[in-house]
Amino acid sequence: MTAPVYNRVALIGLGLIAGSMAHAMRAAGLAGEIVGHARSPETRAIARELFCDRVTETAAEAVQGADLVVLCVPVGAMEAVAEEIGPHLAPGATITDVGSVKQAVIEAVQPHLPAGVHFIPGHPLAGTEYSGPRSGFATLFQNRWWLLTPLEGADPQATARLRRLLEGMGANVDEMEAKRHDLVLAVVSHTPHLIAYTMVGVADHLRRVTQEEVIKYSASGFRDFTRIAASDATMWRDVFLTNKDAVLDILGRFTEELFTLQRAIRMGDGEHLHAYFTRTRAIRRGIIEAGQDTSAPNFGRVAGGGEGSAGE
Amino acid sequence: MTAPVYNRVALIGLGLIAGSMAHAMRAAGLAGEIVGHARSPETRAIARELFCDRVTETAAEAVQGADLVVLCVPVGAMEAVAEEIGPHLAPGATITDVGSVKQAVIEAVQPHLPAGVHFIPGHPLAGTEYSGPRSGFATLFQNRWWLLTPLEGADPQATARLRRLLEGMGANVDEMEAKRHDLVLAVVSHTPHLIAYTMVGVADHLRRVTQEEVIKYSASGFRDFTRIAASDATMWRDVFLTNKDAVLDILGRFTEELFTLQRAIRMGDGEHLHAYFTRTRAIRRGIIEAGQDTSAPNFGRVAGGGEGSAGE
Repeated sequence: MTAPVYNRVALIGLGLIAGSMAHAMRAAGLAGEIVGHARSPETRAIARELFCDRVTETAAEAVQGADLVVLCVPVGAMEAVAEEIGPHLAPGATITDVGSVKQAVIEAVQPHLPAGVHFIPGHPLAGTEYSGPRSGFATLFQNRWWLLTPLEGADPQATARLRRLLEGMGANVDEMEAKRHDLVLAVVSHTPHLIAYTMVGVADHLRRVTQEEVIKYSASGFRDFTRIAASDATMWRDVFLTNKDAVLDILGRFTEELFTLQRAIRMGDGEHLHAYFTRTRAIRRGIIEAGQDTSAPNFGRVAGGGEGSAGE
Repeated sequence: MTAPVYNRVALIGLGLIAGSMAHAMRAAGLAGEIVGHARSPETRAIARELFCDRVTETAAEAVQGADLVVLCVPVGAMEAVAEEIGPHLAPGATITDVGSVKQAVIEAVQPHLPAGVHFIPGHPLAGTEYSGPRSGFATLFQNRWWLLTPLEGADPQATARLRRLLEGMGANVDEMEAKRHDLVLAVVSHTPHLIAYTMVGVADHLRRVTQEEVIKYSASGFRDFTRIAASDATMWRDVFLTNKDAVLDILGRFTEELFTLQRAIRMGDGEHLHAYFTRTRAIRRGIIEAGQDTSAPNFGRVAGGGEGSAGE
């Protein structure tokens, strides 16, 4: 095994992403020591047992002497953490984060960092519908994108070193501007999640259709929405509050589009519907060809367990 | 192996559902002979090769002497087929269908049937995002619901016999009123599909975010939408045109709900968002407990292939 990429990595916030990073770094020998901090003593104890060499009671303590600091807290908690750890960061250390929104994190974190520290914001496009310190696993980032949004004038060597770590965990790394990141993610992730939450909420409220029936017959579309809508509530609240402009923009486009289809249904315009539904198939083919999903029917769900879905 | 449930089964329309039925009936010895008809000669040839004992050039020919006729054509094609086969149905035969909408199918088919024929409308809650005569497989209905909506005064023995066939293919059979079926399906399937189509359409139109980026970074929510939106265009056009009232009702509720969340985002009302997102998790738990989906992260997608999704 080659030398570790970083001698001491500090993980602040110990949920799904931090846990998976720790497991992956350990498996590939990428970090000399992994130090962790979370506010909850219970979470710290689990992390100590499962994937941290050491846990600390404060974030300030965790970052001392670390050459890489990773902020794995919800976006809304980034500023408080940055303020706390700022004075304790080692000179020359790299600091990154895993937040789903980038402009807001930069605004929250940057002002609290001392000179001589390399801040390279990041976002792994990986996760599951589970959260917490027990939910992580070493292969979470395998073949997934990890987007970096380095600031103007960032040190190329610091960025290259961080890339080595991320690629060592199996991720494909891409760089883009923070603003563009936030818009792309509003399309491919944030707005779809909001819509899924909404549809599940509608079903929940429907008194004429009892919850039991909705759950019983949830195959076919709705079930996939509920999975999307089962993700961490705090994380998603923060995403929508901090990527407000892009999400409201995409939501506006979505509503326009939905009203057009709704009108076609009301008017009985079958041609419009058929043409629309035909066009959307092409995007799906592109995703499968890009290796971003399995082409197996129903995501390859195990037969007899949870198959049966679209197309019905 | 016990005696077949029906001596001759006629399948009209030879796509995913008919093909899967034929494979399943053959595997369990449920039908003496399986006769098929589709309009396209190419489809007929494939069906003859893969799962039909015999194919015919007309639907009228296919139903002659059949004690079970299954209409597997899109909902919008049901009336023409019923009109054609009506005079050729054997006395005492059972006729069912697999359409995703039930009231409209009953209105389209019922008037064309002679007395002495048992019409028992049905709908298997099973499918994949694929269609056509090559897409079927014997286990499609395993552990899936098959809803029957018998008309008033239906013959209980004819219904019981059809149930035996469906259960023999692995399905769980439930009976409900056609009107209720259409409303429940509008919630759990039709409206979610329309929303998925819409979101994919929005992404497709976005000029600022190139298609390449949308596809490249499609993990996290959007990818699942594209799968839902990849289903058969003709089938879905007919669903929305024929279940118009229920879909428009649910769409109205969805839009109200979405506007409330949109307003919370605009106003920065984090409490509202958090409470909403917390409530929707409970429905997901219910679905897993009801055995309608796998609890494995990301539907158990194979690691390294297409994992990574919600929660990020």
